[in-house]
Amino acid sequence: MSSPKLEETIERKSDETGDKVTPWDVNAESDTGIDYDKLIRRFGSSKISPELITRIESIIKKPVHHFIRRGIFFSHRDLESILTVYEQQKPFFLYTGRGPSSEAMHLGHLIPFIMTKWLQDAFDVPLVIQMTDDEKFLWKDITIDDANKYAYENAKDIIACGFDPTKTFIFSDFDFMAQCPNFYRNICRIQKSVTFNQVKGIFGFTESDCIGKIAFPAIQAAPSVSSSFPFIFGEKLKQELPCLIPCAIDQDPYFRMTRDVAPRLNFPKPSLIHSTFFPALQGSKSKMSASDPNSSIFLTDSPKDIKTKINKHAFSGGKDSIEEHRAKGGDCDIDVSFQYLTFFMDDDQRLEEIRQDYSSGKLLTGELKKILIEVLQTLVAQHQERRKQVTSDVVRQFMTPRQLNFRY
Amino acid sequence: MSSPKLEETIERKSDETGDKVTPWDVNAESDTGIDYDKLIRRFGSSKISPELITRIESIIKKPVHHFIRRGIFFSHRDLESILTVYEQQKPFFLYTGRGPSSEAMHLGHLIPFIMTKWLQDAFDVPLVIQMTDDEKFLWKDITIDDANKYAYENAKDIIACGFDPTKTFIFSDFDFMAQCPNFYRNICRIQKSVTFNQVKGIFGFTESDCIGKIAFPAIQAAPSVSSSFPFIFGEKLKQELPCLIPCAIDQDPYFRMTRDVAPRLNFPKPSLIHSTFFPALQGSKSKMSASDPNSSIFLTDSPKDIKTKINKHAFSGGKDSIEEHRAKGGDCDIDVSFQYLTFFMDDDQRLEEIRQDYSSGKLLTGELKKILIEVLQTLVAQHQERRKQVTSDVVRQFMTPRQLNFRY
Repeated sequence: MSSPKLEETIERKSDETGDKVTPWDVNAESDTGIDYDKLIRRFGSSKISPELITRIESIIKKPVHHFIRRGIFFSHRDLESILTVYEQQKPFFLYTGRGPSSEAMHLGHLIPFIMTKWLQDAFDVPLVIQMTDDEKFLWKDITIDDANKYAYENAKDIIACGFDPTKTFIFSDFDFMAQCPNFYRNICRIQKSVTFNQVKGIFGFTESDCIGKIAFPAIQAAPSVSSSFPFIFGEKLKQELPCLIPCAIDQDPYFRMTRDVAPRLNFPKPSLIHSTFFPALQGSKSKMSASDPNSSIFLTDSPKDIKTKINKHAFSGGKDSIEEHRAKGGDCDIDVSFQYLTFFMDDDQRLEEIRQDYSSGKLLTGELKKILIEVLQTLVAQHQERRKQVTSDVVRQFMTPRQLNFRY
Repeated sequence: MSSPKLEETIERKSDETGDKVTPWDVNAESDTGIDYDKLIRRFGSSKISPELITRIESIIKKPVHHFIRRGIFFSHRDLESILTVYEQQKPFFLYTGRGPSSEAMHLGHLIPFIMTKWLQDAFDVPLVIQMTDDEKFLWKDITIDDANKYAYENAKDIIACGFDPTKTFIFSDFDFMAQCPNFYRNICRIQKSVTFNQVKGIFGFTESDCIGKIAFPAIQAAPSVSSSFPFIFGEKLKQELPCLIPCAIDQDPYFRMTRDVAPRLNFPKPSLIHSTFFPALQGSKSKMSASDPNSSIFLTDSPKDIKTKINKHAFSGGKDSIEEHRAKGGDCDIDVSFQYLTFFMDDDQRLEEIRQDYSSGKLLTGELKKILIEVLQTLVAQHQERRKQVTSDVVRQFMTPRQLNFRY
């Protein structure tokens, strides 16, 4: 097949003068972190505007999640078309995923799943969650058995986010490949439509990369195609169904590629909503790293771990002395504790009070940290409690290919 | 994973001054056809020597197949080690395959299967036959459904070669991928160990090739690893079993690659025996082409088709006039009819008589063609008769993952 010019993808060279954002590497050029407006322009996505938020709220008849309200999910592609599908009472589905690189997940890993659960509840639609254990095997120095084990362990944390078992299918690539013939067929269709030149342009692959990495993007693309899961959709699958993908913005390259090839394969282009990155404790310059235990709060951390990490490692926007802080106030834009509260404190009014009090100097860094510690101790303890309920049987239930419930 | 230098593969540039032999393209530089001795040197394989033939015959206690005796299977890699395994009464298995590019197969396609059946009988070992319908989808302008249909149609012709159903597993890549988790796992292991640079060197891929083609070599490599088929081997599979691959020499690049990566993955290097190419009716410069109906005898041809094609298209080594032919004799080395007889006439003595008579001018081209026509009419009619017995149930039996019989 010929290789037509990709419409949506921007060649890698244009990336070289800005923040580096690929699925494997995120690095901000400036100390103030990633320039998300610039990223939207470079990626060619759209900002989630106040008008779009109003439209969502009028359709679902309730307020949007604070992730959307607060600009944590800030960018999208064709979200309007999904809203139209919903208004027309036609079916669509959600797709998100996780690369299971280790047993422990951290707070940042929860963001797309919290958003996705909210979307599942708000729109009452089926959801597929891909665990890319094959990707992690290809990229990391781990065995297939370990990557596959991490997929099942991580699935427990994902299930603990509260997904509806009648509407959610979770799968490991290694296992699902041998469960559904359509999956490999759709992967091949996509692999036939994308050249090395294209994945080089989109992902920055080189000739020294292994052929597994080079072919992998088709595997992350395929679950956006509903016919990869015929068992889920049953008689709804007269034609391919529209798909909405919530993900961090670094995953966008996979779906730019998917959207490029979709028309040639008679697949609908998937829609997306993109999140910003959850900052590391040390500051918002980069994503958290599962390999640096002090860069993040893990879902396995004890209340004491959380307290110590926040007090010791959370980058502060406060001033050097109490006197100076009282006089000049703290900087919420760079204060990691405050930023974490924007992710995890539901109450808009309380958050605004904290913002004002910290900015004015009324609230000290230690006091702000104390608030965050309590919020996170509660959140993590509740997560751990829910995760305990997730038995192997429950995991098996979520990971068994089966028909899911649809509203329409 | 790093990309160590491939030990066995020769960089593509050294190919540029000789015959072009890749899995997709065979072109002789000279009018006398492929220089097989040169190919052995370039590929780094070994000639099947008279001493090796003697060893085989002493081990299996019967004469080798005339394909080996007559140098049609002329080259090998590590065939000795397979003989040693057999002498030690340890298990090994055979692996061959076919790319199902169309419904009709021709005589040339039978060569590896005739050889493989003989080896299966002689050594009494299990056999796996890969139908690379995914490869054909990736390389040709055909649908997945058509490629998959051709796999099942071609399987009937392969089964008609007489394989033992208790010792033979035939599979389509598209279907087997969803039947056995180990297959994709071994594919990933190989894909992680081979870089784009390496497949570029071995197969001549370019940056404009689709990522499906680039990753495909791992899919043809994986069936040489016994753990791809745990159900076949049962308790024999305490460790990976040695594998012998009969194939035309143009398929060798796949297995040079496989042998290169095997040690790093703790897989045994597969052994190979290589055939020359079955000549097109028009002459031995190139392989037959399924897309040119007059270049080959199809297994669906009628006795009349066969007669017409041989009489009209089979390139003759005879002289221009009967007088000149009687005086100077014909040239068996370039006569396609004579070469076809070396493939399909069992009787050595009769073949030698024909060679002498044709070379001396005693036998005319029309008479030689008449002998060949009878041989092929019988062979094709018998094949068609056997193929009729191959019902869908029989195909299903061969293509069902199951334990196979072992001698040792």
